[in-house]
Amino acid sequence: MKGIGVGLLGFGTVGAGVFHALRNQEDVILKRTESTFEVRAVLVQNADKKRVKEVEPLITTRFDQVMDADVQVVVEAIGGIEPARTYIEQAMVAGCHIVTANKELVAKHGPELERLARNNGVQFLYEASVGGGIPVLGTLLHLLKSNRIYRVSGILNGTTNYILTRMADAGVSFDQILAEAQEKGYAEADPAADVDGFDAVYKLSILGRLAFGAHIPVPEVRRKGIRDVTAAELELIARLGYRLKLLAVGEQYGEMGPISLGVEPTLLPSSHPLASVNGVHNAIHLEGDLVQDVTLVGQGAGEKPTASAVVEDLCNLSLPVPRRSLDEDPLLLPAAESGGTRFVFLNPRNTGILDADTLRQRLESIGLTVEGTAVSSQGGAGLILRRWDPSFASVLVAELGLDLSNLTTRPVFGSQGVQADQQQQVGSGAV
Amino acid sequence: MKGIGVGLLGFGTVGAGVFHALRNQEDVILKRTESTFEVRAVLVQNADKKRVKEVEPLITTRFDQVMDADVQVVVEAIGGIEPARTYIEQAMVAGCHIVTANKELVAKHGPELERLARNNGVQFLYEASVGGGIPVLGTLLHLLKSNRIYRVSGILNGTTNYILTRMADAGVSFDQILAEAQEKGYAEADPAADVDGFDAVYKLSILGRLAFGAHIPVPEVRRKGIRDVTAAELELIARLGYRLKLLAVGEQYGEMGPISLGVEPTLLPSSHPLASVNGVHNAIHLEGDLVQDVTLVGQGAGEKPTASAVVEDLCNLSLPVPRRSLDEDPLLLPAAESGGTRFVFLNPRNTGILDADTLRQRLESIGLTVEGTAVSSQGGAGLILRRWDPSFASVLVAELGLDLSNLTTRPVFGSQGVQADQQQQVGSGAV
Repeated sequence: MKGIGVGLLGFGTVGAGVFHALRNQEDVILKRTESTFEVRAVLVQNADKKRVKEVEPLITTRFDQVMDADVQVVVEAIGGIEPARTYIEQAMVAGCHIVTANKELVAKHGPELERLARNNGVQFLYEASVGGGIPVLGTLLHLLKSNRIYRVSGILNGTTNYILTRMADAGVSFDQILAEAQEKGYAEADPAADVDGFDAVYKLSILGRLAFGAHIPVPEVRRKGIRDVTAAELELIARLGYRLKLLAVGEQYGEMGPISLGVEPTLLPSSHPLASVNGVHNAIHLEGDLVQDVTLVGQGAGEKPTASAVVEDLCNLSLPVPRRSLDEDPLLLPAAESGGTRFVFLNPRNTGILDADTLRQRLESIGLTVEGTAVSSQGGAGLILRRWDPSFASVLVAELGLDLSNLTTRPVFGSQGVQADQQQQVGSGAV
Repeated sequence: MKGIGVGLLGFGTVGAGVFHALRNQEDVILKRTESTFEVRAVLVQNADKKRVKEVEPLITTRFDQVMDADVQVVVEAIGGIEPARTYIEQAMVAGCHIVTANKELVAKHGPELERLARNNGVQFLYEASVGGGIPVLGTLLHLLKSNRIYRVSGILNGTTNYILTRMADAGVSFDQILAEAQEKGYAEADPAADVDGFDAVYKLSILGRLAFGAHIPVPEVRRKGIRDVTAAELELIARLGYRLKLLAVGEQYGEMGPISLGVEPTLLPSSHPLASVNGVHNAIHLEGDLVQDVTLVGQGAGEKPTASAVVEDLCNLSLPVPRRSLDEDPLLLPAAESGGTRFVFLNPRNTGILDADTLRQRLESIGLTVEGTAVSSQGGAGLILRRWDPSFASVLVAELGLDLSNLTTRPVFGSQGVQADQQQQVGSGAV
């Protein structure tokens, strides 16, 4: 039996969750790993705050006292860039393994921290930074090693997924649901990190790095939040047979090939596996050349699921991490502007929208390929147009006598992909 | 770079898939594992059959020639018990690692083969035996080590899931869809292993062993197939807001506690994550005390996904397998006979079924808790009854003047569970 000393940085939701999990799972961990983990120091900002009795003797406000407490692993649960980054670097240099849940830090400084870890012969693990309890990074690292992953798509932010789900179900505005979520504590007082897509961008950047072996700097990942989504738009989307999700999509075109990474509100056909992922669940769809596709769904946040990911990393410190070369300067592709299927929302301020059938006929008469039309009682309309071209926007404005500012377009994901996949499966006789 | 010699037993769909995958993924495998795998012998029954040129020189019909070909791993892709079992035992004794896709063998003889592997210092890996390409066994072994898994539920057989999906969509009989599936090659000429639930039972038995650390002999796993499912029943189930799936469910009550394992046609609310798993997809829902729940969805069979699982096992031969004690004589619980929610199908031969509302009133007037009623135009009816008690069957027969043979009941899974989970998530502020 090996007793491994743990230094815990931070005692918020994640830190406290890890502390309790290490106690509650001690016997299981011992049985399966022949190790025990003992928290020997807990770094906090305010030592005077009342905490559970077992933690009190371990509390310190000084990082050097953590390092002096005979710790072999540092669990960083502070969040943000500084002082987390400096502490991690110092701990690595002192020969400590690092386990962290800090997506912003891993997204922005992952490559250099990994180099530092390698140079100091320590592990740097961060399963909890993406998808909460879902073991997606471990799956990519250890269980899909022989696969060339060419696409990663997912619902990576629980707060926005909760807001979009509630807006669609209750038919009320973004502001109203956001206020409700803040009141109940599901959304932060400053919701920007979630609703403007930063959180999902960090996670997509980490996923992309592991899946494609390439580092895309965070500012270069396309990002669009959900602030402009309206209940009227969601109602039309539902009537067209789709769901709107803040979808993160990463694709690589060939091994070491160019990469596209982006987060934006995207329509999924209701039958798509990710469309039924509601509320605070997260989901990640991985596509590889051999496995075809694997989807992982689970709790994207919360004390226990996040603690699960951190504790699983601790249990796997002795697992050899497979070598993955990292392309630090990959070719980045812009968003595809044309060729796909696109949803167009003509918002209720527009007047003179006809019924759905007449609208379809008018659009078809000017040469557009229309997959669906829906008209709302409030005067707005939704269109699903195939073979989209950016010039269609001005065509629509001219033909329907609209103001361009009243027109929102969203990508539609996976409808043809899903059908093609099912075709392929059935065709291969693979049942 | 290490060149590892592979002996391949069998060259059907799985064997050929592994052969081609090892060639196509060679560079990826080398990059990530610093190893190459070289197939040095291929055991077949009929050496005269025409095969791709690269395989011809490796073909043999004699197992001893495989063992003489400088192989360090044997991939068993024959299926069934004998001669697969004898070959595996001989290879282990000769110091070879084993990778197999053989669910029947692993379910029936896994514990003794694992002992033999341990005694000979070799690995015995079988990811491909459950869920095709879905890396569920690796997830249980390596990525959920600190979790106490208390429930495993899943759609583990693609053929029956395809048949039930097609029957529900097309509204035609089991026999008709089975014949169609056989004609197209999605179902075997002898469909018993699939439609009578044996295949799913093997897989559930393997999952239960890894999840609960307990071996339940295959004959003791409850098993009910899908032969008695009718299109009329599926129509009523859909109208009640549910889907019928051949669901495998394993539960453990407390660590090393009693276990329940069973496969049978089961209703899921349409909103349940497993309800939208259609066609040949497989899905496994894992529930643990820390992670809460993780669902894995993917291709349950087919040349490439199965080859993916086999090749991933090859890449992980050097990964230490965590110790798991095995309770070889666990307490087995019978199916819960009462207390849950149950669907009752009164089949169309019954006469005198009233409209749905009157039916509900009549059932409520005799004290039943009715969640839903639906009546078919063909005279049958479907009921969802809460707090089920086996005595209800005779009450229904007496009250509605039925013949008992016209009454089918099915368990309803997860409706309250799902709601409770969502409640809990939201309640914990975990977004």
